[in-house]
Amino acid sequence: MGSKQRTAITPTREEDYPEWYQQVIRLSDLAERSPVRGCMVIKPWGYGLWENIVRAMDDMFKATGVKNAYFPLFIPLSFLEKEAEHVEGFAKECAVVTHHRLEKGPEGGLVPAGKLQEPLVVRPTSETIIGESFSRWINSYRDLPVLINQWANVVRWEMRTRIFLRTSEFLWQEGHTAHATADEAVERTRMMLNVYADFAEQFLAIPVIKGRKTASERFPGAVETECIEAMMQDRKALQVGTSHFLGQNFARASDIRFQNADESEDFAWTTSWGTSTRMIGGLIMTHSDDDGLILPPKIASAQVVLLPILHDPDQAGRVMDYTRALAAELRQLRYHGRNLVVEIDTRDIGGARGWDWIRKGIPLRVEIGPRDIDNEAVFFARRDRGHREKTSMDRNRFVGEIKTILDEIQQTLFNRARDFRRENTVSIDEKEAFTSFFTPKNESKPEIHGGFALSHWCGAEACEADIKNDLNATIRCVPFDGERQSGRCICCGRPSERRVVFAKAY
Amino acid sequence: MGSKQRTAITPTREEDYPEWYQQVIRLSDLAERSPVRGCMVIKPWGYGLWENIVRAMDDMFKATGVKNAYFPLFIPLSFLEKEAEHVEGFAKECAVVTHHRLEKGPEGGLVPAGKLQEPLVVRPTSETIIGESFSRWINSYRDLPVLINQWANVVRWEMRTRIFLRTSEFLWQEGHTAHATADEAVERTRMMLNVYADFAEQFLAIPVIKGRKTASERFPGAVETECIEAMMQDRKALQVGTSHFLGQNFARASDIRFQNADESEDFAWTTSWGTSTRMIGGLIMTHSDDDGLILPPKIASAQVVLLPILHDPDQAGRVMDYTRALAAELRQLRYHGRNLVVEIDTRDIGGARGWDWIRKGIPLRVEIGPRDIDNEAVFFARRDRGHREKTSMDRNRFVGEIKTILDEIQQTLFNRARDFRRENTVSIDEKEAFTSFFTPKNESKPEIHGGFALSHWCGAEACEADIKNDLNATIRCVPFDGERQSGRCICCGRPSERRVVFAKAY
Repeated sequence: MGSKQRTAITPTREEDYPEWYQQVIRLSDLAERSPVRGCMVIKPWGYGLWENIVRAMDDMFKATGVKNAYFPLFIPLSFLEKEAEHVEGFAKECAVVTHHRLEKGPEGGLVPAGKLQEPLVVRPTSETIIGESFSRWINSYRDLPVLINQWANVVRWEMRTRIFLRTSEFLWQEGHTAHATADEAVERTRMMLNVYADFAEQFLAIPVIKGRKTASERFPGAVETECIEAMMQDRKALQVGTSHFLGQNFARASDIRFQNADESEDFAWTTSWGTSTRMIGGLIMTHSDDDGLILPPKIASAQVVLLPILHDPDQAGRVMDYTRALAAELRQLRYHGRNLVVEIDTRDIGGARGWDWIRKGIPLRVEIGPRDIDNEAVFFARRDRGHREKTSMDRNRFVGEIKTILDEIQQTLFNRARDFRRENTVSIDEKEAFTSFFTPKNESKPEIHGGFALSHWCGAEACEADIKNDLNATIRCVPFDGERQSGRCICCGRPSERRVVFAKAY
Repeated sequence: MGSKQRTAITPTREEDYPEWYQQVIRLSDLAERSPVRGCMVIKPWGYGLWENIVRAMDDMFKATGVKNAYFPLFIPLSFLEKEAEHVEGFAKECAVVTHHRLEKGPEGGLVPAGKLQEPLVVRPTSETIIGESFSRWINSYRDLPVLINQWANVVRWEMRTRIFLRTSEFLWQEGHTAHATADEAVERTRMMLNVYADFAEQFLAIPVIKGRKTASERFPGAVETECIEAMMQDRKALQVGTSHFLGQNFARASDIRFQNADESEDFAWTTSWGTSTRMIGGLIMTHSDDDGLILPPKIASAQVVLLPILHDPDQAGRVMDYTRALAAELRQLRYHGRNLVVEIDTRDIGGARGWDWIRKGIPLRVEIGPRDIDNEAVFFARRDRGHREKTSMDRNRFVGEIKTILDEIQQTLFNRARDFRRENTVSIDEKEAFTSFFTPKNESKPEIHGGFALSHWCGAEACEADIKNDLNATIRCVPFDGERQSGRCICCGRPSERRVVFAKAY
């Protein structure tokens, strides 16, 4: 393969980033578009990532006292309408169930029958249906807090879809909590955002910026939306997770009332917070290269593939024995809370075998031939290094050090992403420089631009809207760690007290 | 509580079994009916059971080479129609999505808008949508077998619903495999049935009978349906899981073709197999008593609750320290692949606290008071024994022996259920005895009848239908372990070669 083309993925990131993204997914066998409009099929190599994400996040949620539950897929239309901003935000993209049977139509084919009295919406998010339960579960301050999470599928009928990043159906988790005081709900909102940030950085190896959204980017019905934002390799921003302080808006809408210790009655204060299969899109766009996927070891569907060299029929039995014994030993090792996952690939397809696993992004490829056995060695390559860079190592030392090697790969990926973000994040105070930063240098590649601009903003929605209209850049967040600093709005020049993160975004 | 009524659940099983079932679920806080027709809310104590079921079964599937994937929630109507028997079987109970937006209607409220060109059915099962993927994934015998499982929600618009047993939406897993030969597919069908049986017996402590369904009870479109059947405490049968050999029916419908080694082309041989949240209904009806739920330790949402006695304010700190230290120590213990889950209940509500946990079915309740601390002891009760039977044990011995105690409880529950089934399973050869067996003795309790009848059946669908019409008893399965034995059909008297299991069923 190497002889015919420069890279395993065509086109390269440089040549056509959006198409490169599709090809990485296709050639790594992560997922595919389905014949159902806007929906995807997540294939085993991709679903393995989701399983690991679920396991790791779920442990982190439970450590904060959250318990899992499950609520109905369908939301009666009347429920969704209870919160005005909320229904406004989702009405344009709802899958609506109107019938509960199929029967032979006049032309012989099946047609919907059994019309429902009230249409049901396939949940785009579950605040209103979970709120109905909360209103029955919560009577007294003694019942609070209620800390619930749901792992589920949701549907938002997106017009333009992109696999993992924006699909009509996606998998996610949605946390929903209710509290006796505003302070406690605000604290929970931030606590879960911190869980998301820790997970993104420690497991996905994606550095993130924590901050709050401006009013125009808030979740429909929320008082405050907090978010984590990451930079992809095309320097665009991806929102990786959001955590919402809902005030008493949804409690009013769903009538979630409780009696205080002093017998006064109040509405509960609620939060909700979510992350989805979109994170897998972020993972791909943060780490992968022109040879395909690169998976962080902690979240990889498998960490190691063993590639026995079986050309010589006299040696094949011996090579397979050595391979199986090594696999068995590696599979006993615990790595960040689960056993190492080891694949064995015995296909006789020459160099294409190794390239398959490069494209699939597996952290370690280990070749095993008769000579390696003679030396009690293994010959391995790391996916975070060049594909020609291979190391021979004593077999037992390899078993002893593999966890350290994997942790090193994990750290390398994080550091690279952090450095890339640093290199492409610029403080800009002049409007001309700002405009130039977000203007593509090459008309045939409209996606290539500067990156994240840290610039002053006066707080006016009009300025935010002007910049969005002119440059297609938006305020990704008002970062929490930005210090107060006097300056002038990059749009209108009026005084401003802090910089915000401007970027083009997915 | 004990003084006012005999049991924690009213009515008792004897008095009104169906109502007892609802009350056990309500008072153990497992789940509740939702305002969405036929759907349920699975509360944390119930969802914890499902999480443990998923984890244990998933490991068993993966040990047979199966990998997880995810396919779309929506099935285009044209896909469902590809297999004639299949669509016939599901058309009467489908949720149909016909629109993808909501907009203001003439009366001001929101109405469905954006009509879809082709209606989408919310998956009742996924043979046809997964078949479409298989048809693209499979080209050569080298691509086979394909072994896929999906954990998902499905919807069947049931007219009469019963929580966990029959709900419009439920959670399940569906396995789908494709093979190069009929033999291999038949073998996989049986392999997964055996996994189900092992899981039911070893984790749910539910003894099951393995067998095949008669033609009238087959999955729509299957060549053969195999099943596991269990006896509930009202002596009715519950189908706990099914495994289907689909022959080439669905491969033809979805065009899943492959090239053999000899370059001839053939349709693949497929299987599918499923279990669902219905198992939780079976768990409840197998083990629970008139004081509420009884959970098998291996699948319980928590194994132990610690109940510190905090009456004396001078002692409360000391009691809590001892309680927390014990909990921390127990939580380090591994029990069948996961850490022990330990609850601490500090509520000051007197005896109601202990009764709450009895109703919730937790395997072990441990009371901790100042006297226990002085003796370095714990005072515990097992849910498989009478609620007054409590044991004092040296604390360290308890920590050392807890896993053995839990395993004992698990075994006791299995043995009880097995004995109950044995006592209520009768070989019947006379039609009169057969009729009497299935005729309620008391008209006010139509559900009370004999149990499982092992009787001869000639194989005629007419006899099967007659018995169903007359007695509401059906052939649950033709058991695999039944030996060939000459006899006469219990209905028509013609010769028969084996006994089958007749029962009333959920």
